[in-house]
Amino acid sequence: MSSFTFTIEAECSESWARAGTFQTPHGAIQTPIFMPVGTQATVKSVSPEELRSVGAQIILSNTYHLMLRPGSELISSFGGLHSFMHWDGPILTDSGGFQVWSLGHLRKLSEEGVLFKSHLDGSPQFMTPESVMRIEAELGSDIILPLDICAPYPCAPKEAKEAMERTHRWEERALVAKERYRPDQALFGIVQGAFEPELRQESARVIGNMPFPGLSIGGLSVGEPKAQMWEMLRHTTPALPREKPRHLLGVGSPEDLVEGVGLGMDMFDCVLPTRVARHGGLFTRDGRVSIKSARFKTIPGPLEEGCDCYTCRNYSAAYLHHLYRAEEQLYYRLGTIHNLRFMLRLAADLRASILDGTYPTFREAFLKRYQPASE
Amino acid sequence: MSSFTFTIEAECSESWARAGTFQTPHGAIQTPIFMPVGTQATVKSVSPEELRSVGAQIILSNTYHLMLRPGSELISSFGGLHSFMHWDGPILTDSGGFQVWSLGHLRKLSEEGVLFKSHLDGSPQFMTPESVMRIEAELGSDIILPLDICAPYPCAPKEAKEAMERTHRWEERALVAKERYRPDQALFGIVQGAFEPELRQESARVIGNMPFPGLSIGGLSVGEPKAQMWEMLRHTTPALPREKPRHLLGVGSPEDLVEGVGLGMDMFDCVLPTRVARHGGLFTRDGRVSIKSARFKTIPGPLEEGCDCYTCRNYSAAYLHHLYRAEEQLYYRLGTIHNLRFMLRLAADLRASILDGTYPTFREAFLKRYQPASE
Ligand SMILES: [Zn+2]
Ligand SMILES: [Zn+2]
Repeated sequence: MSSFTFTIEAECSESWARAGTFQTPHGAIQTPIFMPVGTQATVKSVSPEELRSVGAQIILSNTYHLMLRPGSELISSFGGLHSFMHWDGPILTDSGGFQVWSLGHLRKLSEEGVLFKSHLDGSPQFMTPESVMRIEAELGSDIILPLDICAPYPCAPKEAKEAMERTHRWEERALVAKERYRPDQALFGIVQGAFEPELRQESARVIGNMPFPGLSIGGLSVGEPKAQMWEMLRHTTPALPREKPRHLLGVGSPEDLVEGVGLGMDMFDCVLPTRVARHGGLFTRDGRVSIKSARFKTIPGPLEEGCDCYTCRNYSAAYLHHLYRAEEQLYYRLGTIHNLRFMLRLAADLRASILDGTYPTFREAFLKRYQPASE
Repeated sequence: MSSFTFTIEAECSESWARAGTFQTPHGAIQTPIFMPVGTQATVKSVSPEELRSVGAQIILSNTYHLMLRPGSELISSFGGLHSFMHWDGPILTDSGGFQVWSLGHLRKLSEEGVLFKSHLDGSPQFMTPESVMRIEAELGSDIILPLDICAPYPCAPKEAKEAMERTHRWEERALVAKERYRPDQALFGIVQGAFEPELRQESARVIGNMPFPGLSIGGLSVGEPKAQMWEMLRHTTPALPREKPRHLLGVGSPEDLVEGVGLGMDMFDCVLPTRVARHGGLFTRDGRVSIKSARFKTIPGPLEEGCDCYTCRNYSAAYLHHLYRAEEQLYYRLGTIHNLRFMLRLAADLRASILDGTYPTFREAFLKRYQPASE
């Protein structure tokens, strides 16, 4: 019997939002959930203990980066990613497909796999659906993703269809290969289909029917307008099996989390909250603010009144402003802790609203008050 | 009655080493002690809680940097440096004299004070013995230092004597001014005299006889050979009053701490342990090692077997090596924690050896084993 089980505890009657619990060998994940991204086996500038303190239940790491440095064999010899990076909660690793796709002309696709050059030393690398399963087995993450092809935006329908169909073939190969390596890992399927409603529906049906214990929605948030991303989800979600957890890859911001939940998504990951924090952008209930603004110079209170994060409990906005201006490393940590806590508290609030049947009200109130950044 | 009292608990019979306790309004300091440096109201890359966890009892901050950014008036309006930076232990602030001296041709000395240009925006600034007392009163540190003149190395005897005599006059002015501001702060005297044994002895006598509750030895570690620095201390210490705590300004490395204690010093501060950590240099009982070295790539154990720091208790040397190579911010924190813990454990070990009468043996064993860096 699988050590992964997904239980749906509540469903919204006016939207596709649902609250659930996903059991993994490293603990339970209560959904909806935001997953902080630790690309290089560390969530930039915070410690595992700090991740726990902000309420992180699962983190995401990047197969592409780890296979190049320090190498999956080395991580395997250390007992896997959990012990290597001192994080004993669940870990999801992506497949590297998205990063390789981002390399542009440096990669070459074939039916067998993808040839690309390392961004570190230019060395040639060949990734196949099978080799990715081996690498993720060595990493030892709880949830693993198969190699996929992310179509560009915009993309001709023919190209979108070919990319989707090859991705489907690759996912079948991944399912076979994975059984040879670590059957105890949960391999999620990836739904593609670019920006073609019919392809999205087809991919959701095809991948939804394969024996994956969960599904990731890929190929979105790649440069298209936000409205178009949500439109694709409206075509995708109804074709997905209800009983499997759904992960929206690479999304997003606070407002994206609120929207995505209503469109039936359970899991989210994005570098945005940690990246913008390092550049001075901090989340508040009223929207994103910039700590570099002179208006924070003399504010003796916390960045956000009532925030329960370590940063707001112990430091003034003026001190954060000073650290940012002085380019002090402690700023990056304190800003990151605040934004992660904001995302995880938001996920917990969304969950609570679904459980007590008030998600539509919560959604409306949040989006009315929260001023998103113009990007 | 002063809230600062220094009690000597043990003295070595074969050297000038002593163990004591210095009471301050923010807690007791057990000497010998190393003081981490938090130039801009933060010890680079570590939190106040982490400073406590490595055993820090007092930290040092820089008047020059804080007066320019964020400004001492702002810090005063926040209730002082302790609450501004969320550190409730004792704080020592230097006078800024050393930083201004480092500006070279950008400063102009007169009997009244020193005119210089801010390194941040080029704005003209004038510092006097009196204004420094006002600024340090606004910072609200426990121990404050007076404006002094640090002679260059090398330095002609005439110039050295003039700098020392002016420093002495400035210290008298500081004593008068300080009473107007915050009599509850402990103003330490600064002993100068460059590299002239007679001047060192004279300065020790003159400053030692003024009503300062403690003494800082300045003007050393400015480029001279180590042997010459220790030679100057051999002339200074015997002329100092026994009952006042002695602070060796800007020193130093692990081996300097061990040597300095034997020459009668009680307090040490230096950016070296934190700065070299950020550049990959980590202390072990056998000497300083470089974490960037390929030999650490596959080491599954801690950087130093038996080290009780957070870093060594939770992470492998290989993981530190990976973080350093990947330029991840968590490395700077983990390296800094290890080096600070090394320094503070060394200070505690030195204290214990003085208390049980084994300092000479401890000193010999440490220096025999510890391989210092060649700088
Ligand atoms: Zn906060
Ligand atoms: Zn250590």
